[in-house]
Amino acid sequence: MLIDLNSDMGESFGPWAIGDDARMLEIVSSANIACGFHAGDPEVMHSTLSLAHAQGVGAGAHPGFYDLQGFGRRQILGDSPAQIERQIVYQIGALQGLAKSIGIPLRHVKTHGALGNLAAADPAPAQAVARAIYSVDRDLIMVVMPGMETEKAALKRGLPVVREIYADRAYADNGNLLSRKLDGAVLHDPQQAATRILRMLEQQAITTVSGRALPSRIDSICVHGDTPGAVAMAAALRARLEGQGFTIAPMQAAGG
Amino acid sequence: MLIDLNSDMGESFGPWAIGDDARMLEIVSSANIACGFHAGDPEVMHSTLSLAHAQGVGAGAHPGFYDLQGFGRRQILGDSPAQIERQIVYQIGALQGLAKSIGIPLRHVKTHGALGNLAAADPAPAQAVARAIYSVDRDLIMVVMPGMETEKAALKRGLPVVREIYADRAYADNGNLLSRKLDGAVLHDPQQAATRILRMLEQQAITTVSGRALPSRIDSICVHGDTPGAVAMAAALRARLEGQGFTIAPMQAAGG
Amino acid sequence: MLIDLNSDMGESFGPWAIGDDARMLEIVSSANIACGFHAGDPEVMHSTLSLAHAQGVGAGAHPGFYDLQGFGRRQILGDSPAQIERQIVYQIGALQGLAKSIGIPLRHVKTHGALGNLAAADPAPAQAVARAIYSVDRDLIMVVMPGMETEKAALKRGLPVVREIYADRAYADNGNLLSRKLDGAVLHDPQQAATRILRMLEQQAITTVSGRALPSRIDSICVHGDTPGAVAMAAALRARLEGQGFTIAPMQAAGG
Amino acid sequence: MLIDLNSDMGESFGPWAIGDDARMLEIVSSANIACGFHAGDPEVMHSTLSLAHAQGVGAGAHPGFYDLQGFGRRQILGDSPAQIERQIVYQIGALQGLAKSIGIPLRHVKTHGALGNLAAADPAPAQAVARAIYSVDRDLIMVVMPGMETEKAALKRGLPVVREIYADRAYADNGNLLSRKLDGAVLHDPQQAATRILRMLEQQAITTVSGRALPSRIDSICVHGDTPGAVAMAAALRARLEGQGFTIAPMQAAGG
Repeated sequence: MLIDLNSDMGESFGPWAIGDDARMLEIVSSANIACGFHAGDPEVMHSTLSLAHAQGVGAGAHPGFYDLQGFGRRQILGDSPAQIERQIVYQIGALQGLAKSIGIPLRHVKTHGALGNLAAADPAPAQAVARAIYSVDRDLIMVVMPGMETEKAALKRGLPVVREIYADRAYADNGNLLSRKLDGAVLHDPQQAATRILRMLEQQAITTVSGRALPSRIDSICVHGDTPGAVAMAAALRARLEGQGFTIAPMQAAGG
Repeated sequence: MLIDLNSDMGESFGPWAIGDDARMLEIVSSANIACGFHAGDPEVMHSTLSLAHAQGVGAGAHPGFYDLQGFGRRQILGDSPAQIERQIVYQIGALQGLAKSIGIPLRHVKTHGALGNLAAADPAPAQAVARAIYSVDRDLIMVVMPGMETEKAALKRGLPVVREIYADRAYADNGNLLSRKLDGAVLHDPQQAATRILRMLEQQAITTVSGRALPSRIDSICVHGDTPGAVAMAAALRARLEGQGFTIAPMQAAGG
Repeated sequence: MLIDLNSDMGESFGPWAIGDDARMLEIVSSANIACGFHAGDPEVMHSTLSLAHAQGVGAGAHPGFYDLQGFGRRQILGDSPAQIERQIVYQIGALQGLAKSIGIPLRHVKTHGALGNLAAADPAPAQAVARAIYSVDRDLIMVVMPGMETEKAALKRGLPVVREIYADRAYADNGNLLSRKLDGAVLHDPQQAATRILRMLEQQAITTVSGRALPSRIDSICVHGDTPGAVAMAAALRARLEGQGFTIAPMQAAGG
Repeated sequence: MLIDLNSDMGESFGPWAIGDDARMLEIVSSANIACGFHAGDPEVMHSTLSLAHAQGVGAGAHPGFYDLQGFGRRQILGDSPAQIERQIVYQIGALQGLAKSIGIPLRHVKTHGALGNLAAADPAPAQAVARAIYSVDRDLIMVVMPGMETEKAALKRGLPVVREIYADRAYADNGNLLSRKLDGAVLHDPQQAATRILRMLEQQAITTVSGRALPSRIDSICVHGDTPGAVAMAAALRARLEGQGFTIAPMQAAGG
């Protein structure tokens, strides 16, 4: 029983730090590393790759919109799918260059923030993401949310796919994340979150806010790294998973 | 008798265009493509790579300081050689990603502007450049000016080396480019420039402004792409070279 | 019979030039100057202000989204009206600083590209624009399209208002610009464009693509500066206007 | 006996925070606010101005080189004094726009990081700083280090001048800050730092590392805001100053 824990990392920039990457890398098994467009810079990318490697954590690219000020959380409207594709290729390539320079393989790609939301909801950008990954390295795993357009695009393109669920986010009945504007959208209690995740893994289904179960393969669990309590949440989840007999393993082993 | 003609390309950005890349790519055999730090963006990089490939022109990376506003011509003081190394790796990787996505090999790396000047003059950044290239792909040619620190660093690191001279720039007696502030630093007459280049190739020596000849292997000639008259200068030079029996060939064939 | 001709200017950036500002400044009477977010930099802003002043052309701010690569033509979704307000204040202030440093008054503000489109269509950002202008200098003219939300917001806020029409763009029946995707959206023939503008001025109404006339005060005509033929279009229009007895005058005189 | 305490503030950017501005604003009397080039963005500038105003703290501009990644600590070589002047004008204007929008006067200007070091050491950029300030608003105080080129330039230009000393930095015998590379360059003990400052104020002289006293008027003391222990250092200094009968007052009252 292998399961991956993934987290966004390398989200510092220049003089500014976000997250406790060193601590998170002791807990998770896959790191989604920002590529300089919404966060990260060559120094941060290099040190995050090195740190991940030293901890046996699988390294992946976390491309986003070119928007430092908005941290990639603002959607930039107006680029064609082809333009989005090239922006993603650029970012994967940049991280791959740094990974090569220290002898580390990249394992996966997961889109960030507004770019991720766009691709999950819309087939054309979802296919742009899949084409971008495939054209750079067809062995890279595409991380997707079950049932979303990204999953369809990855399968259609023939990429290795890892399906993830979110440790601290509630799901709507359509399988999408519940809007943060609604009550209960974010889970704050580590044990409650862990209990919910264990049930989903047992059932191989996403449990929605109304109690429905949406059957889906689940390969990875996303824990956030940039919020207060992130490390505690991740540590509690890991302990509960291991207590139930799961082995935490990078997504190239756990899924893909 | 093979000789390479190289030129800086892909120096447009977003809505702004510089240079007549389409025309220059009919004349030169190697393209130094900006990587987004001082010029270029994913769209421009992609289209320049495609255009170069269609013309049989060898594609290379042209990394510079992170300075769009100054076009990489301002030196940014304060980064360590290791930080400079990672900035170069990032840029090579990004272009390599785009090159892979359209099935084109990268052939060479040539540093741009203030970064190039810094590396030519100072061993530590020169070695940072060589390490950056070597760590990403040790088959990439490092383009250098004969006698400069970049040449020493490339040889020491064991990289393939291509030595270039400038078609339109006068040389000081120490083998460096004559400062642009001095009279005669820039040659404007295409035929006069071509005559000088042919003599240097014949002698396998750099002719300085005082008439001295500094013996050096010469593999490539750099023609500028962003000045008025650039295309005419390049075309005249190519015609004269071919008239003297030279074959214009990408640097992976002509030198390296 | 006074009428203003306005044009976007100062849209160069660093090494990259757009438009023939020197020629356009001989033709128009008001210059909308980019403020560094989507185009322009302190050098360009300074020289455009100086040039405008030397030609007796009224200077105004042309704030946009923070998006050099997309030239402010991509909408950035996710900022609150208050955040947009502050981005506009920042840009007006920056240009005002440069204007003060050379002793020139700013006359007006006109939003650029995607920000302009957003404000024209949506009351909340339109009011953010009006609040931004009013809070920095309540004597600044707000340039608006007749009938749009920006007009309502400017009037509500008590700002001086100038209503502009576009020399080279067709109008839909609702008074908005016809989408560029539709045939006939952009007029290319200078004389045809001038004839249409003269009719609109005579009728004090916007003529739509179907022939309807939407009554509106018209204070200014926008001519574009960054397209081929822009100078010829503007010059033809000016000649025709003057031939009909109009005097071309900055918007602080012609409207406001 | 009035004395000003000044600190750099508003150095957050987008999602990234630096410093505990809210706490520091309870202690200091003048805030040097970053203007978006090396740190800060319209949101951060707006909220820092508002917070400073609410605490009765004098607000000033803290312009730097355009270098977010390097936090303005890297020198950018190659701009003329006139170009530097315009970059400073732009930044002062932007902050002044935001200050006007909330009805707060700007009081002073202090250059940041590498730009500050450059201006302190070199007359041409020092005069560019003074010209920039004077051209935007000749009532703005220019904050300088006693004996440096910035002091001379401010006096020559006729600007109000405030001379500051650093609470936590040792001085070389020439009156400059002792290089951070040397032992003892940075003082970490709040009480020791306060004792030294009190002696300097009593003597109206800078005490150097070798014990020399360089006579100088002293109007303000700079405390850093972005280091661990910054708040404790500032609080201890304020308490000791008040214990000795000093009243902490904004620089427009204390000096200028």
